[in-house]
Amino acid sequence: MFSNSPVIILVQPQLAENIGMTARAMMNCGLYDLRLVSPRENHLSPKAVSASSGADKILEKAEVYTSTEAAIADLQKIYATTARRRDMIKQVATADFAAEQITSAAANGTRCGILFGPERTGLHNDDVCLADSIIEIPLNPEHCSLNLSQAVLLVGYEWFKRQIQSPASQMVTNKTTLADKQKVLQFLKHFEDKLDNCGNFRICEKRERMVINLRNIFTRNELTEQELNTLYGIINYLDNK
Amino acid sequence: MFSNSPVIILVQPQLAENIGMTARAMMNCGLYDLRLVSPRENHLSPKAVSASSGADKILEKAEVYTSTEAAIADLQKIYATTARRRDMIKQVATADFAAEQITSAAANGTRCGILFGPERTGLHNDDVCLADSIIEIPLNPEHCSLNLSQAVLLVGYEWFKRQIQSPASQMVTNKTTLADKQKVLQFLKHFEDKLDNCGNFRICEKRERMVINLRNIFTRNELTEQELNTLYGIINYLDNK
Repeated sequence: MFSNSPVIILVQPQLAENIGMTARAMMNCGLYDLRLVSPRENHLSPKAVSASSGADKILEKAEVYTSTEAAIADLQKIYATTARRRDMIKQVATADFAAEQITSAAANGTRCGILFGPERTGLHNDDVCLADSIIEIPLNPEHCSLNLSQAVLLVGYEWFKRQIQSPASQMVTNKTTLADKQKVLQFLKHFEDKLDNCGNFRICEKRERMVINLRNIFTRNELTEQELNTLYGIINYLDNK
Repeated sequence: MFSNSPVIILVQPQLAENIGMTARAMMNCGLYDLRLVSPRENHLSPKAVSASSGADKILEKAEVYTSTEAAIADLQKIYATTARRRDMIKQVATADFAAEQITSAAANGTRCGILFGPERTGLHNDDVCLADSIIEIPLNPEHCSLNLSQAVLLVGYEWFKRQIQSPASQMVTNKTTLADKQKVLQFLKHFEDKLDNCGNFRICEKRERMVINLRNIFTRNELTEQELNTLYGIINYLDNK
């Protein structure tokens, strides 16, 4: 899907289910390259495959190594994820910043990998010191323990966001289109005329304020042509009654 | 922990385990206000409590409603999370943008809520149309199905990031301090002198390039005073041999 995406490396994962859930989280984020260092359980067991809910391709392609050194040998930049601070002198980045760095590095052809430790203990210091940088996911310090696959999901999600261009916020109108301003103003004029005719705007000094309120209500919500027609229909129906 | 944090509303969740895992994800993200609309299983069952791994306070405080309308009644701005596009004319925001909006709205005193649908189907259109806006988490379109608690985690994570000031990237030196440039340059001078003395820089025309390389190596990695001492020790040991 994306070229030169980072490799996810699980160091001594304990449970097959967590390997499967990690594969699922990776697929959610467009990541396909999984490596396992001495997993305790078989990553192709029915438990793992079932937990991957459809991401079994990733499990089948996963490579197993007997040491972290071997698993990172062909890579050029390594990140270690940790939940607690270590007595180690090292760059510590948020998942956000690391995703930005990995994306830039990958664009320069650098092959990156991200280490995740065993469920119970997290990465050993022996593994952390192999990494160029540490990733610390910003979470509630009073409760920052994450399931292994959730840690992969958050880091993967930050990476995925940078591979795609999704508009931060958009008005989704499906098959209809937003009305142009002429149509919106015509509708407002029509509505105001009807209200004038039926005597709603009797109190002259209040008319101006009410018109402004109405215009604010209907210009705030990006009406489509279809919706304008719905509103015309209602007003005309009420008028005929 | 944070005032006016958004309310997480699970509409007809099916599994007690998922309610528990949602509570855990909420606590990870500093969210404490959980509401449940007609849950199929008891949110205080041992299954739910065990899955919450320590976030049972959130389960105990959770409020149960019989309709989405009742669950959102006292709130002012509602977001609906959906994985697939609906035939509905509505603002669609990324989790990122929505988190920004919720944070701004909350600062103005607006009480926000976020709806999450049942595991199997997601939110019904009847619930989506109650929301001011839709949140669509940007994920691999070929595999975007998330576990309920993972959806809560990603939205909560984006929100939490905005409540704290965590430095994007920092050099963590624990009890030691980064060496000032004078100390680094002194060390480099010492190293170069030793190399001169032992004849490493015999070929004159190569000396300049080698010195530049060495300086780049040792200025690139933000050495601490302690680390400089380690390097001095090694050089002096080798020199004495």
